[in-house]
Amino acid sequence: MNGAEFLIHTAVKAGIEVCFANPGTTEMPLVNALDSVPGMRAVLGLFEGVCTGAADGYARMAGKPAMTLLHLGPGFGNGVANLHNARRAKTPMLNVVGEHASWHLPFDPLLAMDIEALAGSVSAWYRTIKSPDTLGRDTVDAVAAALNGGIATLIAPNDFQWTEISDTGIGFPEKNKLPVDEVLVGQAVDLLLKAGKCALILGGQALSDRGLMTAACIQSKIDCDLFYDTFPARLEQGAGYPDIHRIPYLPEMALETLKPYDAVICIGTRVPVAFFGYPGLPSQFVHDDQKKLVIAPSGGAAMDALSLIARVVDGPDVPDPEILSILKRPDMPAGKLDGTKAGSILAAIQPENAIVVEEAITNSLAYHAVINGCPKFTLLSLTGGSIGQGPASATGAAIACPDRPIIDFQADGSAMYTIQSLWTQARENLNVTTLICSNRSYDILKMEMARSGNLAPGANAQRMTDLSGIDWVKLGESQGVASVSVNTCEGMAQELEKALSEKGPHLIELALG
Amino acid sequence: MNGAEFLIHTAVKAGIEVCFANPGTTEMPLVNALDSVPGMRAVLGLFEGVCTGAADGYARMAGKPAMTLLHLGPGFGNGVANLHNARRAKTPMLNVVGEHASWHLPFDPLLAMDIEALAGSVSAWYRTIKSPDTLGRDTVDAVAAALNGGIATLIAPNDFQWTEISDTGIGFPEKNKLPVDEVLVGQAVDLLLKAGKCALILGGQALSDRGLMTAACIQSKIDCDLFYDTFPARLEQGAGYPDIHRIPYLPEMALETLKPYDAVICIGTRVPVAFFGYPGLPSQFVHDDQKKLVIAPSGGAAMDALSLIARVVDGPDVPDPEILSILKRPDMPAGKLDGTKAGSILAAIQPENAIVVEEAITNSLAYHAVINGCPKFTLLSLTGGSIGQGPASATGAAIACPDRPIIDFQADGSAMYTIQSLWTQARENLNVTTLICSNRSYDILKMEMARSGNLAPGANAQRMTDLSGIDWVKLGESQGVASVSVNTCEGMAQELEKALSEKGPHLIELALG
Repeated sequence: MNGAEFLIHTAVKAGIEVCFANPGTTEMPLVNALDSVPGMRAVLGLFEGVCTGAADGYARMAGKPAMTLLHLGPGFGNGVANLHNARRAKTPMLNVVGEHASWHLPFDPLLAMDIEALAGSVSAWYRTIKSPDTLGRDTVDAVAAALNGGIATLIAPNDFQWTEISDTGIGFPEKNKLPVDEVLVGQAVDLLLKAGKCALILGGQALSDRGLMTAACIQSKIDCDLFYDTFPARLEQGAGYPDIHRIPYLPEMALETLKPYDAVICIGTRVPVAFFGYPGLPSQFVHDDQKKLVIAPSGGAAMDALSLIARVVDGPDVPDPEILSILKRPDMPAGKLDGTKAGSILAAIQPENAIVVEEAITNSLAYHAVINGCPKFTLLSLTGGSIGQGPASATGAAIACPDRPIIDFQADGSAMYTIQSLWTQARENLNVTTLICSNRSYDILKMEMARSGNLAPGANAQRMTDLSGIDWVKLGESQGVASVSVNTCEGMAQELEKALSEKGPHLIELALG
Repeated sequence: MNGAEFLIHTAVKAGIEVCFANPGTTEMPLVNALDSVPGMRAVLGLFEGVCTGAADGYARMAGKPAMTLLHLGPGFGNGVANLHNARRAKTPMLNVVGEHASWHLPFDPLLAMDIEALAGSVSAWYRTIKSPDTLGRDTVDAVAAALNGGIATLIAPNDFQWTEISDTGIGFPEKNKLPVDEVLVGQAVDLLLKAGKCALILGGQALSDRGLMTAACIQSKIDCDLFYDTFPARLEQGAGYPDIHRIPYLPEMALETLKPYDAVICIGTRVPVAFFGYPGLPSQFVHDDQKKLVIAPSGGAAMDALSLIARVVDGPDVPDPEILSILKRPDMPAGKLDGTKAGSILAAIQPENAIVVEEAITNSLAYHAVINGCPKFTLLSLTGGSIGQGPASATGAAIACPDRPIIDFQADGSAMYTIQSLWTQARENLNVTTLICSNRSYDILKMEMARSGNLAPGANAQRMTDLSGIDWVKLGESQGVASVSVNTCEGMAQELEKALSEKGPHLIELALG
């Protein structure tokens, strides 16, 4: 067994079964091992940002890491932006990056660069294999790091991949289980019982089906309100779950939203931080006179902490049905389409069990306000603010959940960042429907420009926000995705129903007024 | 004057007049300054790899840096791959990256990441502005670093951009002039006169018009052969220049090519290094028993060194006309198109003064063999091996040279990496003709797979090299570029002539058999 085969074998043994890849010459033994070792499905992306974003979406849905296979520093560099999103989502991932042969690297061949510097910027764990003798141990450590919930990046020199290794009997550690901090749980219970009105801000596993139902059990006993981070990695949502509100994006609104609460308890997340700093506004959304408590911000023990709180406050085993959302789709709007109406139509139509990837930016505000009444579904969002996450992670989510409908509710400017994702969706015949919110503009920047005091942008500034000139139907079709453009509510409803009723990928341009 | 205005003002004062940008909220004062300070043209790219690649192409042609404006770490990350190519091309560039407001960054907002780690991986100079008091000095240092021929990256916190600064009178240093190493020049002359048959491998300024004519003057006096790096940043080429040969990509061929020489003298480049390491083959292309000498490998004083050599060997002031290439276009091939024929047709048609950006990968071999006889033109190539350089740098070259025809001779797989470049070409109405060598395959990987001993690739490996399913006509048209597909030599010739006769961008898919 050569090093490459051992690496793939170890990953497969750990339950990793999909590799999102764009390999090159330095990864060739690994490419060969993808066939000689059974159990790994290789999915090609035509740009590495597709691969890392897909691995993120896959892991959020599968609950376990995918592997990526990337070509040297430049290939990893192309994946950095979506790795940044994955890092913020606390997504487990195993990146394997080829490096030049160990004896060739000192000659500084043209593709050589400092891969570790790039890897370190986004990875919870990274290492370059220094010798075939340590390849076994390094591989096992990398896989263990990925299993334990972080981004692990293993840099594998080409010659070590093709070297036969003897040390193939290394076991690998179990997934760690983080302990609950009972002191913090006690403090949370104290706040819930004595502090007055409490806001529970949930993240990580606390936004899972079990997490939300446990939070509802707490609510059944104690009057408190539930919130989720503005950009949750994964949120279960819909009728049958308790009402849970999004923390607004703009600091003025977020501060106002959280103002009524005497205490803010964060479970599986941190105290919410403004997306950007603005003059005269605080960085955090909690006021000085509010009590605050943070439990398991890295996500690990959030579910157990929530369960323990429910038990200590003596909540019921099943929530009071009164506090659970009832099925209530928004009314179907009519006439010319805009972003608000698009969100309502999506919420009115999306099927039970859908996975909605939400990177609609300015067009998502209305949508978040009405999703409590949808049939149960899963929401994935842009966790790190690095645009181009949507098309890629929708691709990965579809690989993880082939039997669920995937809807990528997507801003046009952001979609252009990883537009190559459409090709993989077509190649793999994935059930992804991409809804392009086509306002032909970086609208969020126009808003931020106005907030910065520039109310009459000059020629250069105007050109920085204007995206006109993209034909989305041709762009989708050029990569093999059935595509259509609509500019009315009726058109969107009809085409969305149609896309969801057919197998394979679809793109619908929502030409917004 | 606020910090942002001082920054733009300083860049303009240093002759920087184009900014390839994709800004965000943290760069808003800089966006505003692009209008309030006159003299900078802002060009939007819909993905940062377009911006950095365009800045590279621009600088290779303009002989001076462009500015890029990038959004935080993820925006810079998206630009890393083409910055890597620019670094290998020794391209001057001023990158300005916004950072969160200094008082907001400690709260670790979602978009925060280690920008310096990314910047350090590709920049000759980088710095984060630590205070409004140092912004003036930091800006001047950054601009000076860019002027002196490297990639300079200045990280500018948002609040410092909007702060009024008093320290606006700082001058900036002149462009440094590197001295010629006369000892090395003497050694080169000795080798030329006494070592037997010499190969002169030229890079940097030695491949300019003046460099090539100077090399021809040396050749007029001393029998020696000229070579250029496999991937030159910029090469002047064609009839009227001396014969100069490309160092082959494959080590076996490169070793064979350089074997006949008693001495190898590298001027403005280093001893050629294999693109990848292969078992049993050396990393460098010079044999142990060959004499070798390297002068000005970083490029700076290469031209002066070459001139001094010509003077010391007492070469003529103008080259012997006998040794200059004569105009000799290849014969026009006929019938079904393939990569070899495509190269011949391009060489047969490309107009005098064209700029050919060559990222055709496996399809460029034939082209390089016949370009000596074309009318004079400029060749730009993929210097760092990080694919996706072509469409972006063609865009920048067209901004630098609006009156010259730009031809991007482009592999299909590579084009997909920065395909958003087409949108900028259309938006700016640039005279770029993109020739997509559509073999629907990463052919170079198939070759490397075979070289690695895998002669019967399995299902996963096959899927890693197959790119079928892209409709290039729709893909070009979707971004506003007039597009057509041809599969015959006659069709290519006709469409290339037509594209070159019309203003604005064109795309021609060369559907290769």
